[in-house]
Amino acid sequence: MQFTSEQRLDDGVLEREFALGEIPGILWTPASASAPAPLVLIGHPGGLRKMYPRLVGRARHSAADGFAAATIELPGSGDRPSSVATEQARADLRRALEAGEPVDEEIVDRLVLPLVEKAVPEWQAALDALLSLPEIGGPVGYSGGVISIGIRLAVVEPRISAAVLFAGSFVPRALFEEARQVTIPLHVLLQWDDEGNDRQLALDLFDAFGSKEKTLHANLGGHTGVPQFAGDAAAQFFTRHLK
Amino acid sequence: MQFTSEQRLDDGVLEREFALGEIPGILWTPASASAPAPLVLIGHPGGLRKMYPRLVGRARHSAADGFAAATIELPGSGDRPSSVATEQARADLRRALEAGEPVDEEIVDRLVLPLVEKAVPEWQAALDALLSLPEIGGPVGYSGGVISIGIRLAVVEPRISAAVLFAGSFVPRALFEEARQVTIPLHVLLQWDDEGNDRQLALDLFDAFGSKEKTLHANLGGHTGVPQFAGDAAAQFFTRHLK
Repeated sequence: MQFTSEQRLDDGVLEREFALGEIPGILWTPASASAPAPLVLIGHPGGLRKMYPRLVGRARHSAADGFAAATIELPGSGDRPSSVATEQARADLRRALEAGEPVDEEIVDRLVLPLVEKAVPEWQAALDALLSLPEIGGPVGYSGGVISIGIRLAVVEPRISAAVLFAGSFVPRALFEEARQVTIPLHVLLQWDDEGNDRQLALDLFDAFGSKEKTLHANLGGHTGVPQFAGDAAAQFFTRHLK
Repeated sequence: MQFTSEQRLDDGVLEREFALGEIPGILWTPASASAPAPLVLIGHPGGLRKMYPRLVGRARHSAADGFAAATIELPGSGDRPSSVATEQARADLRRALEAGEPVDEEIVDRLVLPLVEKAVPEWQAALDALLSLPEIGGPVGYSGGVISIGIRLAVVEPRISAAVLFAGSFVPRALFEEARQVTIPLHVLLQWDDEGNDRQLALDLFDAFGSKEKTLHANLGGHTGVPQFAGDAAAQFFTRHLK
Protein backbone atom coordinates (compact mmCIF):
# COMPACT_ATOMS: atom_id res chain seq x y z
CA MET A 1 0.00 0.00 0.00
CA GLN A 2 1.43 3.34 -1.05
CA PHE A 3 0.03 6.67 0.04
CA THR A 4 -0.30 9.01 -2.94
CA SER A 5 -1.75 12.16 -1.36
CA GLU A 6 -2.63 13.55 2.03
CA GLN A 7 -4.85 16.37 3.29
CA ARG A 8 -6.42 17.53 6.55
CA LEU A 9 -10.17 18.12 6.30
CA ASP A 10 -11.65 21.13 8.11
CA ASP A 11 -12.74 18.93 11.04
CA GLY A 12 -9.18 17.69 11.49
CA VAL A 13 -9.75 14.29 9.89
CA LEU A 14 -6.69 13.09 7.98
CA GLU A 15 -7.60 11.94 4.46
CA ARG A 16 -5.01 9.91 2.55
CA GLU A 17 -5.40 8.43 -0.91
CA PHE A 18 -3.52 5.22 -1.50
CA ALA A 19 -2.80 2.63 -4.14
CA LEU A 20 -2.89 -1.05 -3.35
CA GLY A 21 -1.21 -2.33 -6.47
CA GLU A 22 -3.62 -1.25 -9.22
CA ILE A 23 -6.46 -0.50 -6.81
CA PRO A 24 -7.04 3.08 -5.64
CA GLY A 25 -8.40 3.68 -2.17
CA ILE A 26 -8.93 6.30 0.53
CA LEU A 27 -8.17 6.16 4.25
CA TRP A 28 -9.59 8.56 6.80
CA THR A 29 -8.27 8.68 10.37
CA PRO A 30 -9.67 10.69 13.30
CA ALA A 31 -8.18 14.09 14.16
CA SER A 32 -6.82 12.82 17.43
CA ALA A 33 -6.48 9.24 18.51
CA SER A 34 -4.71 8.15 21.68
CA ALA A 35 -4.85 4.44 20.78
CA PRO A 36 -5.07 2.48 17.53
CA ALA A 37 -8.56 3.08 16.14
CA PRO A 38 -11.13 0.44 15.18
CA LEU A 39 -11.76 0.38 11.44
CA VAL A 40 -14.91 0.73 9.35
CA LEU A 41 -14.67 -0.48 5.75
CA ILE A 42 -16.94 1.72 3.65
CA GLY A 43 -18.62 -0.19 0.84
CA HIS A 44 -20.24 1.48 -2.17
CA PRO A 45 -21.58 0.58 -5.62
CA GLY A 46 -18.40 1.57 -7.47
CA GLY A 47 -16.96 4.84 -8.78
CA LEU A 48 -14.91 6.48 -6.00
CA ARG A 49 -14.86 9.93 -7.58
CA LYS A 50 -18.59 10.07 -8.22
CA MET A 51 -19.33 8.62 -4.78
CA TYR A 52 -16.80 10.80 -2.94
CA PRO A 53 -19.22 13.33 -1.40
CA ARG A 54 -21.29 10.57 0.23
CA LEU A 55 -18.25 8.49 1.19
CA VAL A 56 -16.47 11.37 2.91
CA GLY A 57 -19.68 12.19 4.79
CA ARG A 58 -19.86 8.65 6.15
CA ALA A 59 -16.12 8.66 6.91
CA ARG A 60 -16.35 11.93 8.86
CA HIS A 61 -19.22 10.48 10.89
CA SER A 62 -17.10 7.40 11.65
CA ALA A 63 -14.08 9.53 12.55
CA ALA A 64 -16.18 11.63 14.92
CA ASP A 65 -17.06 8.38 16.70
CA GLY A 66 -13.36 7.48 16.97
CA PHE A 67 -13.12 5.09 14.02
CA ALA A 68 -10.77 5.01 11.08
CA ALA A 69 -12.59 4.50 7.78
CA ALA A 70 -11.34 3.18 4.46
CA THR A 71 -12.62 2.33 1.03
CA ILE A 72 -11.25 0.92 -2.21
CA GLU A 73 -12.43 1.12 -5.81
CA LEU A 74 -14.47 -1.83 -7.07
CA PRO A 75 -13.27 -3.99 -9.97
CA GLY A 76 -14.51 -2.52 -13.25
CA SER A 77 -15.49 0.86 -11.76
CA GLY A 78 -13.92 4.32 -11.87
CA ASP A 79 -10.52 4.17 -13.61
CA ARG A 80 -10.22 0.39 -13.26
CA PRO A 81 -10.56 -1.67 -16.45
CA SER A 82 -14.03 -3.00 -17.08
CA SER A 83 -14.74 -6.51 -18.28
CA VAL A 84 -16.70 -7.23 -21.46
CA ALA A 85 -18.81 -9.84 -19.68
CA THR A 86 -19.78 -7.44 -16.88
CA GLU A 87 -20.63 -4.67 -19.33
CA GLN A 88 -22.80 -7.12 -21.24
CA ALA A 89 -24.60 -8.18 -18.05
CA ARG A 90 -25.11 -4.53 -17.09
CA ALA A 91 -26.59 -3.78 -20.51
CA ASP A 92 -28.90 -6.80 -20.26
CA LEU A 93 -30.04 -5.66 -16.81
CA ARG A 94 -30.70 -2.13 -18.05
CA ARG A 95 -32.68 -3.47 -20.98
CA ALA A 96 -34.84 -5.62 -18.70
CA LEU A 97 -35.48 -2.73 -16.30
CA GLU A 98 -36.33 -0.30 -19.09
CA ALA A 99 -38.72 -2.82 -20.61
CA GLY A 100 -40.33 -3.27 -17.20
CA GLU A 101 -39.59 -7.00 -17.34
CA PRO A 102 -38.69 -9.15 -14.36
CA VAL A 103 -34.92 -9.50 -14.12
CA ASP A 104 -33.65 -13.01 -14.87
CA GLU A 105 -31.67 -14.63 -12.08
CA GLU A 106 -29.18 -15.55 -14.74
CA ILE A 107 -28.48 -11.84 -15.49
CA VAL A 108 -28.05 -11.10 -11.78
CA ASP A 109 -25.63 -14.01 -11.48
CA ARG A 110 -23.57 -12.79 -14.45
CA LEU A 111 -23.47 -9.26 -13.06
CA VAL A 112 -22.87 -9.84 -9.35
CA LEU A 113 -21.08 -13.17 -8.87
CA PRO A 114 -17.86 -12.23 -10.74
CA LEU A 115 -17.85 -8.89 -8.90
CA VAL A 116 -18.06 -10.66 -5.52
CA GLU A 117 -15.41 -13.20 -6.53
CA LYS A 118 -12.99 -10.45 -7.47
CA ALA A 119 -13.83 -7.74 -4.93
CA VAL A 120 -13.82 -9.80 -1.73
CA PRO A 121 -10.12 -10.86 -1.92
CA GLU A 122 -9.28 -7.22 -2.71
CA TRP A 123 -11.07 -6.01 0.42
CA GLN A 124 -9.20 -8.69 2.36
CA ALA A 125 -5.86 -7.52 0.92
CA ALA A 126 -6.77 -3.95 1.84
CA LEU A 127 -7.55 -5.18 5.35
CA ASP A 128 -4.10 -6.80 5.61
CA ALA A 129 -2.45 -3.52 4.61
CA LEU A 130 -4.66 -1.27 6.76
CA LEU A 131 -4.32 -3.36 9.91
CA SER A 132 -0.52 -3.23 9.59
CA LEU A 133 -0.62 0.55 10.11
CA PRO A 134 0.16 1.56 13.71
CA GLU A 135 -2.77 4.00 13.87
CA ILE A 136 -5.31 1.29 13.08
CA GLY A 137 -6.18 -1.53 15.44
CA GLY A 138 -9.37 -3.48 15.38
CA PRO A 139 -12.07 -4.61 15.51
CA VAL A 140 -13.32 -4.10 11.96
CA GLY A 141 -16.80 -3.36 10.67
CA TYR A 142 -18.08 -3.42 7.10
CA SER A 143 -20.61 -0.78 6.14
CA GLY A 144 -22.29 -0.56 2.86
CA GLY A 145 -23.79 -1.47 -0.32
CA VAL A 146 -23.30 -4.10 -2.87
CA ILE A 147 -24.85 -6.18 -0.12
CA SER A 148 -23.58 -9.36 -1.79
CA ILE A 149 -19.99 -8.27 -1.12
CA GLY A 150 -20.93 -7.62 2.50
CA ILE A 151 -22.50 -11.07 2.82
CA ARG A 152 -19.48 -12.89 1.39
CA LEU A 153 -17.06 -10.83 3.51
CA ALA A 154 -19.09 -11.56 6.63
CA VAL A 155 -18.87 -15.28 5.89
CA VAL A 156 -15.21 -15.63 4.85
CA GLU A 157 -13.39 -12.86 6.75
CA PRO A 158 -13.14 -13.54 10.50
CA ARG A 159 -11.61 -10.12 11.20
CA ILE A 160 -14.97 -8.46 10.44
CA SER A 161 -16.93 -8.30 13.69
CA ALA A 162 -20.11 -6.49 12.68
CA ALA A 163 -21.74 -5.15 9.52
CA VAL A 164 -24.18 -2.45 8.46
CA LEU A 165 -25.70 -3.66 5.20
CA PHE A 166 -27.69 -1.55 2.73
CA ALA A 167 -30.48 -3.51 1.09
CA GLY A 168 -31.02 -2.24 -2.40
CA SER A 169 -29.21 -4.21 -5.04
CA PHE A 170 -29.83 -7.48 -6.80
CA VAL A 171 -28.73 -10.52 -4.82
CA PRO A 172 -27.85 -13.80 -6.58
CA ARG A 173 -29.56 -16.89 -5.18
CA ALA A 174 -26.16 -18.31 -4.17
CA LEU A 175 -25.45 -15.32 -1.91
CA PHE A 176 -28.91 -15.64 -0.45
CA GLU A 177 -27.89 -19.12 0.68
CA GLU A 178 -24.59 -17.80 2.06
CA ALA A 179 -26.56 -15.32 4.15
CA ARG A 180 -27.69 -18.25 6.34
CA GLN A 181 -24.04 -18.78 7.32
CA VAL A 182 -23.56 -15.20 8.55
CA THR A 183 -23.27 -15.10 12.34
CA ILE A 184 -21.88 -11.61 13.14
CA PRO A 185 -24.21 -8.86 14.45
CA LEU A 186 -25.99 -7.15 11.54
CA HIS A 187 -27.74 -3.83 11.13
CA VAL A 188 -29.68 -3.80 7.85
CA LEU A 189 -30.91 -0.55 6.29
CA LEU A 190 -33.89 -0.76 3.93
CA GLN A 191 -35.26 2.22 2.05
CA TRP A 192 -38.94 1.32 1.90
CA ASP A 193 -39.62 3.04 -1.45
CA ASP A 194 -36.31 2.28 -3.12
CA GLU A 195 -37.18 2.30 -6.82
CA GLY A 196 -34.38 -0.10 -7.75
CA ASN A 197 -35.00 -2.51 -4.91
CA ASP A 198 -37.23 -5.51 -4.46
CA ARG A 199 -38.65 -4.94 -0.97
CA GLN A 200 -39.85 -8.51 -0.50
CA LEU A 201 -36.44 -9.86 -1.48
CA ALA A 202 -34.82 -7.55 1.10
CA LEU A 203 -37.20 -8.80 3.81
CA ASP A 204 -36.59 -12.43 2.82
CA LEU A 205 -32.85 -11.80 2.92
CA PHE A 206 -33.13 -10.26 6.39
CA ASP A 207 -35.05 -13.34 7.48
CA ALA A 208 -32.37 -15.62 6.02
CA PHE A 209 -29.37 -14.16 7.87
CA GLY A 210 -28.12 -16.63 10.46
CA SER A 211 -27.01 -13.96 12.96
CA LYS A 212 -28.47 -14.04 16.46
CA GLU A 213 -28.38 -10.25 16.61
CA LYS A 214 -29.84 -8.69 13.51
CA THR A 215 -31.85 -5.49 13.23
CA LEU A 216 -33.76 -4.13 10.26
CA HIS A 217 -34.25 -0.37 10.02
CA ALA A 218 -36.74 0.53 7.31
CA ASN A 219 -37.32 4.16 6.44
CA LEU A 220 -39.37 6.03 3.88
CA GLY A 221 -37.71 7.39 0.82
CA GLY A 222 -35.69 6.27 -2.17
CA HIS A 223 -32.27 4.73 -2.56
CA THR A 224 -30.19 7.78 -1.60
CA GLY A 225 -32.70 9.18 0.89
CA VAL A 226 -31.44 7.50 4.07
CA PRO A 227 -32.48 9.95 6.82
CA GLN A 228 -29.85 11.50 9.07
CA PHE A 229 -31.25 9.74 12.14
CA ALA A 230 -30.88 6.37 10.38
CA GLY A 231 -27.21 7.12 9.71
CA ASP A 232 -26.84 8.01 13.39
CA ALA A 233 -28.44 4.71 14.41
CA ALA A 234 -26.04 2.78 12.18
CA ALA A 235 -23.13 4.64 13.78
CA GLN A 236 -24.42 3.70 17.24
CA PHE A 237 -24.52 0.06 16.15
CA PHE A 238 -20.79 0.22 15.34
CA THR A 239 -20.08 2.00 18.62
CA ARG A 240 -21.83 -0.87 20.44
CA HIS A 241 -19.92 -3.57 18.59
CA LEU A 242 -16.49 -2.17 17.71
CA LYS A 243 -15.53 -0.45 20.98
CA MET B 1 -57.95 13.05 38.83
CA GLN B 2 -57.11 12.19 42.40
CA PHE B 3 -53.70 11.07 43.58
CA THR B 4 -54.00 8.04 45.85
CA SER B 5 -50.37 7.29 46.70
CA GLU B 6 -46.91 8.72 46.20
CA GLN B 7 -43.36 7.37 46.42
CA ARG B 8 -39.86 8.34 45.33
CA LEU B 9 -38.07 5.61 43.39
CA ASP B 10 -34.35 5.07 44.07
CA ASP B 11 -33.41 7.11 41.00
CA GLY B 12 -35.41 10.07 42.30
CA VAL B 13 -38.36 9.60 39.95
CA LEU B 14 -41.65 10.54 41.63
CA GLU B 15 -44.27 7.80 41.16
CA ARG B 16 -47.89 8.69 41.93
CA GLU B 17 -50.88 6.43 41.57
CA PHE B 18 -54.11 8.17 40.67
CA ALA B 19 -57.77 7.52 40.03
CA LEU B 20 -59.55 9.15 37.12
CA GLY B 21 -63.09 8.36 38.17
CA GLU B 22 -63.16 4.55 38.11
CA ILE B 23 -59.91 4.27 36.15
CA PRO B 24 -56.65 3.64 38.01
CA GLY B 25 -53.45 5.08 36.61
CA ILE B 26 -49.83 5.87 37.39
CA LEU B 27 -47.85 9.04 36.75
CA TRP B 28 -44.05 9.23 36.83
CA THR B 29 -42.24 12.57 36.80
CA PRO B 30 -38.47 13.17 36.52
CA ALA B 31 -36.39 13.69 39.66
CA SER B 32 -35.65 17.27 38.74
CA ALA B 33 -37.38 19.34 36.12
CA SER B 34 -36.78 23.04 35.61
CA ALA B 35 -39.65 23.45 33.14
CA PRO B 36 -42.92 21.59 32.49
CA ALA B 37 -41.95 18.20 31.05
CA PRO B 38 -43.15 16.67 27.78
CA LEU B 39 -45.36 13.64 28.36
CA VAL B 40 -45.15 10.06 27.13
CA LEU B 41 -48.34 8.01 27.41
CA ILE B 42 -47.34 4.41 28.07
CA GLY B 43 -49.66 1.93 26.40
CA HIS B 44 -49.84 -1.74 27.35
CA PRO B 45 -52.08 -4.78 26.79
CA GLY B 46 -53.97 -4.40 30.08
CA GLY B 47 -53.36 -5.38 33.69
CA LEU B 48 -51.39 -2.61 35.40
CA ARG B 49 -50.24 -4.76 38.33
CA LYS B 50 -49.00 -7.62 36.18
CA MET B 51 -47.39 -5.18 33.73
CA TYR B 52 -45.88 -2.94 36.44
CA PRO B 53 -42.24 -4.14 36.23
CA ARG B 54 -42.07 -3.46 32.48
CA LEU B 55 -44.06 -0.22 32.73
CA VAL B 56 -41.87 1.26 35.45
CA GLY B 57 -38.78 0.32 33.44
CA ARG B 58 -40.07 2.24 30.44
CA ALA B 59 -41.16 5.15 32.65
CA ARG B 60 -37.71 5.42 34.30
CA HIS B 61 -36.12 5.48 30.85
CA SER B 62 -38.48 8.30 29.83
CA ALA B 63 -37.82 10.19 33.05
CA ALA B 64 -34.05 9.92 32.53
CA ASP B 65 -34.62 11.63 29.16
CA GLY B 66 -36.59 14.43 30.85
CA PHE B 67 -40.10 13.19 30.11
CA ALA B 68 -43.05 12.62 32.38
CA ALA B 69 -44.75 9.27 31.74
CA ALA B 70 -48.24 8.09 32.53
CA THR B 71 -50.47 5.10 32.03
CA ILE B 72 -54.03 4.07 32.80
CA GLU B 73 -55.72 0.70 33.17
CA LEU B 74 -57.56 -0.59 30.09
CA PRO B 75 -61.32 -1.24 30.13
CA GLY B 76 -61.98 -4.82 31.27
CA SER B 77 -58.45 -5.38 32.63
CA GLY B 78 -56.98 -5.51 36.15
CA ASP B 79 -59.64 -4.56 38.71
CA ARG B 80 -61.95 -2.99 36.12
CA PRO B 81 -65.18 -4.85 35.30
CA SER B 82 -64.95 -7.10 32.28
CA SER B 83 -67.66 -7.37 29.65
CA VAL B 84 -69.33 -10.65 28.75
CA ALA B 85 -68.94 -9.93 25.04
CA THR B 86 -65.20 -9.27 25.35
CA GLU B 87 -64.65 -12.39 27.45
CA GLN B 88 -66.52 -14.39 24.81
CA ALA B 89 -64.37 -12.93 22.02
CA ARG B 90 -61.21 -13.65 24.01
CA ALA B 91 -62.32 -17.27 24.53
CA ASP B 92 -63.09 -17.63 20.82
CA LEU B 93 -59.65 -16.24 19.95
CA ARG B 94 -57.92 -18.61 22.37
CA ARG B 95 -59.83 -21.55 20.93
CA ALA B 96 -58.82 -20.64 17.38
CA LEU B 97 -55.15 -20.19 18.36
CA GLU B 98 -55.04 -23.46 20.32
CA ALA B 99 -56.60 -25.29 17.37
CA GLY B 100 -54.00 -23.74 15.09
CA GLU B 101 -56.78 -22.25 12.96
CA PRO B 102 -56.61 -18.89 11.19
CA VAL B 103 -58.30 -16.24 13.33
CA ASP B 104 -61.55 -14.93 11.87
CA GLU B 105 -61.64 -11.18 11.23
CA GLU B 106 -64.99 -11.24 12.93
CA ILE B 107 -63.41 -12.44 16.21
CA VAL B 108 -60.72 -9.74 16.00
CA ASP B 109 -63.42 -7.13 15.41
CA ARG B 110 -65.43 -8.29 18.43
CA LEU B 111 -62.32 -8.29 20.62
CA VAL B 112 -60.56 -5.11 19.58
CA LEU B 113 -63.13 -2.63 18.24
CA PRO B 114 -65.09 -2.21 21.53
CA LEU B 115 -61.78 -1.88 23.39
CA VAL B 116 -60.64 0.90 21.06
CA GLU B 117 -64.05 2.63 21.26
CA LYS B 118 -63.91 2.66 25.04
CA ALA B 119 -60.20 3.13 25.74
CA VAL B 120 -59.45 6.03 23.39
CA PRO B 121 -61.80 8.55 25.08
CA GLU B 122 -60.36 7.43 28.43
CA TRP B 123 -56.81 8.15 27.29
CA GLN B 124 -58.06 11.54 26.07
CA ALA B 125 -59.65 12.26 29.44
CA ALA B 126 -56.40 11.26 31.13
CA LEU B 127 -54.59 13.63 28.80
CA ASP B 128 -56.93 16.49 29.81
CA ALA B 129 -56.16 15.85 33.48
CA LEU B 130 -52.42 15.30 33.06
CA LEU B 131 -51.87 18.39 30.93
CA SER B 132 -53.62 20.52 33.57
CA LEU B 133 -50.82 19.68 36.05
CA PRO B 134 -48.19 22.45 36.28
CA GLU B 135 -45.29 19.97 36.08
CA ILE B 136 -46.45 18.63 32.71
CA GLY B 137 -46.35 20.60 29.50
CA GLY B 138 -46.26 19.13 26.07
CA PRO B 139 -45.76 17.85 23.48
CA VAL B 140 -47.20 14.39 24.01
CA GLY B 141 -46.10 11.04 22.64
CA TYR B 142 -47.89 7.70 22.73
CA SER B 143 -45.76 4.62 23.25
CA GLY B 144 -47.00 1.15 23.20
CA GLY B 145 -49.04 -1.78 22.46
CA VAL B 146 -52.55 -2.49 21.61
CA ILE B 147 -51.42 -0.90 18.38
CA SER B 148 -55.08 -0.32 17.39
CA ILE B 149 -55.48 2.10 20.31
CA GLY B 150 -52.33 3.89 19.18
CA ILE B 151 -53.63 4.17 15.62
CA ARG B 152 -56.99 5.61 16.68
CA LEU B 153 -55.35 8.04 19.13
CA ALA B 154 -52.93 9.19 16.43
CA VAL B 155 -55.88 9.92 14.14
CA VAL B 156 -58.31 11.60 16.55
CA GLU B 157 -56.08 13.28 19.16
CA PRO B 158 -54.20 16.30 17.81
CA ARG B 159 -52.25 16.73 21.05
CA ILE B 160 -50.26 13.58 20.27
CA SER B 161 -47.21 14.59 18.21
CA ALA B 162 -45.36 11.32 17.72
CA ALA B 163 -45.87 7.64 18.48
CA VAL B 164 -43.83 4.52 19.11
CA LEU B 165 -46.05 1.59 18.15
CA PHE B 166 -45.45 -2.06 19.04
CA ALA B 167 -46.57 -4.41 16.29
CA GLY B 168 -47.80 -7.61 17.81
CA SER B 169 -51.52 -7.75 18.30
CA PHE B 170 -54.47 -8.42 16.06
CA VAL B 171 -55.59 -5.39 14.06
CA PRO B 172 -59.17 -5.09 12.78
CA ARG B 173 -59.52 -4.25 9.09
CA ALA B 174 -61.21 -0.95 10.00
CA LEU B 175 -58.16 0.21 11.99
CA PHE B 176 -55.94 -0.85 9.12
CA GLU B 177 -57.84 1.66 6.99
CA GLU B 178 -57.52 4.34 9.68
CA ALA B 179 -53.76 3.83 9.60
CA ARG B 180 -53.72 5.55 6.19
CA GLN B 181 -54.98 8.73 7.92
CA VAL B 182 -52.12 8.83 10.42
CA THR B 183 -49.72 11.68 9.64
CA ILE B 184 -47.59 12.07 12.79
CA PRO B 185 -44.02 10.69 12.89
CA LEU B 186 -44.04 6.99 13.75
CA HIS B 187 -41.46 4.56 15.10
CA VAL B 188 -42.73 1.00 14.76
CA LEU B 189 -41.15 -1.88 16.69
CA LEU B 190 -41.56 -5.36 15.28
CA GLN B 191 -40.30 -8.49 17.01
CA TRP B 192 -39.42 -10.65 14.03
CA ASP B 193 -40.20 -13.98 15.74
CA ASP B 194 -43.17 -12.83 17.80
CA GLU B 195 -45.14 -16.02 18.26
CA GLY B 196 -48.49 -14.21 18.61
CA ASN B 197 -47.92 -11.84 15.73
CA ASP B 198 -48.57 -12.02 12.02
CA ARG B 199 -45.35 -10.61 10.55
CA GLN B 200 -46.79 -9.97 7.11
CA LEU B 201 -49.74 -8.09 8.62
CA ALA B 202 -47.31 -5.93 10.61
CA LEU B 203 -45.32 -5.13 7.44
CA ASP B 204 -48.52 -4.35 5.51
CA LEU B 205 -49.64 -2.10 8.36
CA PHE B 206 -46.31 -0.26 8.32
CA ASP B 207 -46.74 0.22 4.59
CA ALA B 208 -50.28 1.57 5.10
CA PHE B 209 -49.43 4.35 7.58
CA GLY B 210 -49.85 7.74 5.93
CA SER B 211 -47.01 9.40 7.86
CA LYS B 212 -44.18 10.99 5.89
CA GLU B 213 -41.72 10.01 8.61
CA LYS B 214 -42.10 6.41 9.63
CA THR B 215 -39.40 3.96 10.67
CA LEU B 216 -39.66 0.23 11.22
CA HIS B 217 -37.21 -1.40 13.65
CA ALA B 218 -37.35 -5.16 13.42
CA ASN B 219 -35.35 -7.26 15.87
CA LEU B 220 -34.97 -10.92 16.57
CA GLY B 221 -36.78 -12.47 19.46
CA GLY B 222 -40.27 -12.98 20.78
CA HIS B 223 -42.95 -10.61 22.00
CA THR B 224 -41.29 -9.52 25.25
CA GLY B 225 -37.73 -9.79 23.95
CA VAL B 226 -37.27 -6.21 22.69
CA PRO B 227 -33.49 -5.65 23.02
CA GLN B 228 -32.17 -2.85 25.21
CA PHE B 229 -30.70 -1.02 22.19
CA ALA B 230 -34.13 -1.02 20.52
CA GLY B 231 -35.63 0.60 23.61
CA ASP B 232 -32.85 3.18 23.48
CA ALA B 233 -33.61 3.90 19.81
CA ALA B 234 -37.29 4.42 20.61
CA ALA B 235 -36.32 6.84 23.37
CA GLN B 236 -34.12 8.76 20.92
CA PHE B 237 -37.10 9.03 18.56
CA PHE B 238 -39.10 10.77 21.31
CA THR B 239 -36.16 13.01 22.14
CA ARG B 240 -36.07 14.07 18.48
CA HIS B 241 -39.78 14.78 18.32
CA LEU B 242 -40.91 15.89 21.77
CA LYS B 243 -38.12 18.30 22.72
